[in-house]
Amino acid sequence: MQNGANKMRKYGVIGLGQVGATVAYTLVQRGTVDELVLIDHNEALAQAQKIDLEDASPRLATSTKIILNDYSALADAEVLIIASGNIKAIDMNSSKGRFGEYDSNQAIVRDIAPKIVASGFKGILIDIMNPCDVMTDYLQRLTGFDHNRVFGTGTFLDTARMQKCVGQALHTNSKNVDGYVYGEHGNSQFVAWSTVRVNGQPIAHFQKNANLDLDQLEEDARQGAFAVMNGKHYTNFAIATCGVRLAEAVSADAQLACPVSAFDPELGTYVGMPAIIGKNGIESLIRLDLTTAEKASLAASAKFIKENVDVLPVD
Amino acid sequence: MQNGANKMRKYGVIGLGQVGATVAYTLVQRGTVDELVLIDHNEALAQAQKIDLEDASPRLATSTKIILNDYSALADAEVLIIASGNIKAIDMNSSKGRFGEYDSNQAIVRDIAPKIVASGFKGILIDIMNPCDVMTDYLQRLTGFDHNRVFGTGTFLDTARMQKCVGQALHTNSKNVDGYVYGEHGNSQFVAWSTVRVNGQPIAHFQKNANLDLDQLEEDARQGAFAVMNGKHYTNFAIATCGVRLAEAVSADAQLACPVSAFDPELGTYVGMPAIIGKNGIESLIRLDLTTAEKASLAASAKFIKENVDVLPVD
Amino acid sequence: MQNGANKMRKYGVIGLGQVGATVAYTLVQRGTVDELVLIDHNEALAQAQKIDLEDASPRLATSTKIILNDYSALADAEVLIIASGNIKAIDMNSSKGRFGEYDSNQAIVRDIAPKIVASGFKGILIDIMNPCDVMTDYLQRLTGFDHNRVFGTGTFLDTARMQKCVGQALHTNSKNVDGYVYGEHGNSQFVAWSTVRVNGQPIAHFQKNANLDLDQLEEDARQGAFAVMNGKHYTNFAIATCGVRLAEAVSADAQLACPVSAFDPELGTYVGMPAIIGKNGIESLIRLDLTTAEKASLAASAKFIKENVDVLPVD
Amino acid sequence: MQNGANKMRKYGVIGLGQVGATVAYTLVQRGTVDELVLIDHNEALAQAQKIDLEDASPRLATSTKIILNDYSALADAEVLIIASGNIKAIDMNSSKGRFGEYDSNQAIVRDIAPKIVASGFKGILIDIMNPCDVMTDYLQRLTGFDHNRVFGTGTFLDTARMQKCVGQALHTNSKNVDGYVYGEHGNSQFVAWSTVRVNGQPIAHFQKNANLDLDQLEEDARQGAFAVMNGKHYTNFAIATCGVRLAEAVSADAQLACPVSAFDPELGTYVGMPAIIGKNGIESLIRLDLTTAEKASLAASAKFIKENVDVLPVD
Repeated sequence: MQNGANKMRKYGVIGLGQVGATVAYTLVQRGTVDELVLIDHNEALAQAQKIDLEDASPRLATSTKIILNDYSALADAEVLIIASGNIKAIDMNSSKGRFGEYDSNQAIVRDIAPKIVASGFKGILIDIMNPCDVMTDYLQRLTGFDHNRVFGTGTFLDTARMQKCVGQALHTNSKNVDGYVYGEHGNSQFVAWSTVRVNGQPIAHFQKNANLDLDQLEEDARQGAFAVMNGKHYTNFAIATCGVRLAEAVSADAQLACPVSAFDPELGTYVGMPAIIGKNGIESLIRLDLTTAEKASLAASAKFIKENVDVLPVD
Repeated sequence: MQNGANKMRKYGVIGLGQVGATVAYTLVQRGTVDELVLIDHNEALAQAQKIDLEDASPRLATSTKIILNDYSALADAEVLIIASGNIKAIDMNSSKGRFGEYDSNQAIVRDIAPKIVASGFKGILIDIMNPCDVMTDYLQRLTGFDHNRVFGTGTFLDTARMQKCVGQALHTNSKNVDGYVYGEHGNSQFVAWSTVRVNGQPIAHFQKNANLDLDQLEEDARQGAFAVMNGKHYTNFAIATCGVRLAEAVSADAQLACPVSAFDPELGTYVGMPAIIGKNGIESLIRLDLTTAEKASLAASAKFIKENVDVLPVD
Repeated sequence: MQNGANKMRKYGVIGLGQVGATVAYTLVQRGTVDELVLIDHNEALAQAQKIDLEDASPRLATSTKIILNDYSALADAEVLIIASGNIKAIDMNSSKGRFGEYDSNQAIVRDIAPKIVASGFKGILIDIMNPCDVMTDYLQRLTGFDHNRVFGTGTFLDTARMQKCVGQALHTNSKNVDGYVYGEHGNSQFVAWSTVRVNGQPIAHFQKNANLDLDQLEEDARQGAFAVMNGKHYTNFAIATCGVRLAEAVSADAQLACPVSAFDPELGTYVGMPAIIGKNGIESLIRLDLTTAEKASLAASAKFIKENVDVLPVD
Repeated sequence: MQNGANKMRKYGVIGLGQVGATVAYTLVQRGTVDELVLIDHNEALAQAQKIDLEDASPRLATSTKIILNDYSALADAEVLIIASGNIKAIDMNSSKGRFGEYDSNQAIVRDIAPKIVASGFKGILIDIMNPCDVMTDYLQRLTGFDHNRVFGTGTFLDTARMQKCVGQALHTNSKNVDGYVYGEHGNSQFVAWSTVRVNGQPIAHFQKNANLDLDQLEEDARQGAFAVMNGKHYTNFAIATCGVRLAEAVSADAQLACPVSAFDPELGTYVGMPAIIGKNGIESLIRLDLTTAEKASLAASAKFIKENVDVLPVD
């Protein structure tokens, strides 16, 4: 008598602070999934998010089932988004930046990785937790999942910020700006200007015509993140939108080109670079012809990430 | 290395005329499904619909894979919508109405039912093909699927038309109108006025206040369908919207109350009445306290449907 | 050379805490508006919300212009949502509840009302600020706008909570539950059970069949709000969804029946009751045949609201 | 008492055959507009489309008012989409192709242009009618509207087809393919391969790696259109999606880079090329560094279009 097809779209979200909760809200608003497994060690917070989302349901055209704090429900989930963390540990005004969460979040990884493995989760794991590249790598190591099944939002957000800043400088839509921010989702990231095009023209074309100061633009994008942190003490809207878009690309097997934190076997670590996202997570890396300087920046950023992962305990 | 979760949303549509194609277009526009299996014996038509839908994809935020004329791809589909038929056989101005397709569509059922069974399809079958109740019943008989796994759009559309006509008569939004059209998706259907409420008030309240002529309203709704047929020789937008909404209710296991063509064991046939739609298709029938006259109308409509199914060959 | 039609959809939001920011995010995610005026006296917070929303834009199919802290930009806005407040002043565990914000928010009304008037705003004002009914009334008094142009979200959210609790108790979708919570968006609110129907049947039908305890259900809905406050110290998802839905009903002139905080000339105050929402804001009140007890509860709730408005200074 | 803001989104569509009706359906499904003016000289067809769309409304979360055959209602419309035509006059297998509609559609332009002017329409006119570039130019001449206020879908669809074919050849998402088809929306169009990039890499990169035959790909894209016409005798889904996307870019003042049929003062005619779309219609043309051969192809295509416009009567 049952529907034997059992193809309900099911995602999980671990960590229900501002970011995880906004991811959940976005999924519920868009009707992306049929079932949503929400997990947080703060039981009262988890209950609050579930109730708040369910109270919205009578006002939405779609319906989403919410399952709370049940790791076993992840067994047949398609995507698992990790948004844990302690935002208060981040001090964007200190040199540590997102590394403020390094100590507390590595402990979270050690806590949740075995639980994820034990759940029988067979889907794709998308990490948002900071420092993103380090924690993505650490999650892969501690879960033992194939590298393609684990990736981080990485520079997908930083690239959006670059698109926005370039778009504003040139008075055009950020969607008209192509190109990628590479490297760490952190201080050692860089805009690979050789990849940036606006309305189909290389950025160099505008540099002379519009007196574009690329260093300043890169700095503006970075300062934007600081301004958000200073003003609201966390960021959630853009990062949640990025996370949801990546998850939907996995669901649809979209084979979409996105800059994310992917494992590069040549560099031996997770690091931000363009990759193809599909039902297997990272389907392939996109190897662009970077300049010598860009290659060096990428190597340096990867080295920094790798050093910070390699010192983490693996058993 | 693969995503073992394999939870892509997958629907099939058989019959790619105006209705089936509009169902497919609506699904692609909304990004409802990850994979869409399109089937039509007219290979050129099927190819045309696939290409036209794929040409839209670069202009949409979502991505949908289209698989053409492959019954075996239905094995793991969640929902299968039947929109076959020969619209030219319908003559709304003759007494036969939607029964103009009776002869040609029963042959289609005999053609496709064994192919659906052979495909290993385990999901929910939603029939739009006319005469809807008869063909839904016949599809259930020839597939042998449990009754709950097979239902028809039935009076879901007629109810929408009633809501619209009542809304227009009372200068209010059709969404403010509750209630159900029961019976055949055809001439013997009727508005169960005892179930109709507007802004939370029984229709009787408006009947005196606004000089509402219920017989005329029922006739207006029916004439609307004629006007569509006369003007464009088919209907597609409203019926496709209804089909997609029901399919999405199955995907989300929404437990949504909708008037559809469901099997009523007491009446021994499929017939339009409110039911709860969820992942198992028809989760339960909703038994409202109809008036004696309404009960009689329903029995008569059901009898008419049953007689037209019972004479159809089953082997 | 210009587009003389100038029909861009433009909304304003005053107050960019959790609720106002989530309203803004929902509008940007849905692509509801072309221009969004965001106003908050905390300049750093306002900047942060703007940047975070703009950073999401490259990842969305739609585009929304954001204008910051410019009251004059409200002159041609269609809808203005007031989401100001000091959530820390609310203590749901004290008898004051949402009245914790009474003192601070009346000061906000006195601050913003003349600025709204001075802006030349000609659209519809939707208040979310608590205590909702009192502040909506006060906003109307201090702006001098016609009563229909000012309304509050009121019991639109409480009704959603009731629908959810009833739906969960009966294992059905909250969308299958009709009916209204009346009165104050606060402690004196009540479920008008005479208006509540599930799947087209009066709630009384289920009361005996399913051993439904209506008092407990009403308490559950109320406790849900407490649980959200206790767990996350604010609510935002459901209330923002309610606010956006009402704003969209204004934009579309939807003539949609919704329970909101509307001015009832008979009761002499704003209070939660069903009304028709359209381009003029409150198009009309819906007068249902409440029971004598329900009428008394409504009068008592209205009296409480009115007393709390009447003591507020008007010049 | 009224909402003085009067900012409802309002579009018009002239021509309610497959394309115009699908444009209307897409707008209603997406809830893009608040009011939709539908115009067709076939009164029965117009009525049928209106009824079919209104019958869908109770099943949608959004609401759209439909106004029928009233040119005066265009006075405050923001966008007007022209989808008139006689699809039967197109014979894709003859050398005339889309020029089969040349004779009948120029008569339609002479009929509707003065009516549009007389309506007081002040918005942006988007032409889909074929042959697209010629009829767009003719519409501009006969309405006398500024060139920026009139443009055609032109190669926006052909570019989508190119993206799809390149994407399929390289097993990647069509959204990963950038670049433009220039020239006539007809036989003299061409892919400007110098502008085409996949995942950020020039197409030349793939030409050698993947043995890509660009001539064949260009032919595939063109044959796709033929296959659609042969199979369903019209195309509607992709072209309607393109038209809606352009209209929404106008509404949002998106400043989006899109290849459309825009007036190029250097070439003295409308012709397909990338342009920036915003609230003023064509905000600016995008001048890419085409190869000498591409420039020659564009000039030849433009010359063909101009010759076919110049012979049309202007008074």
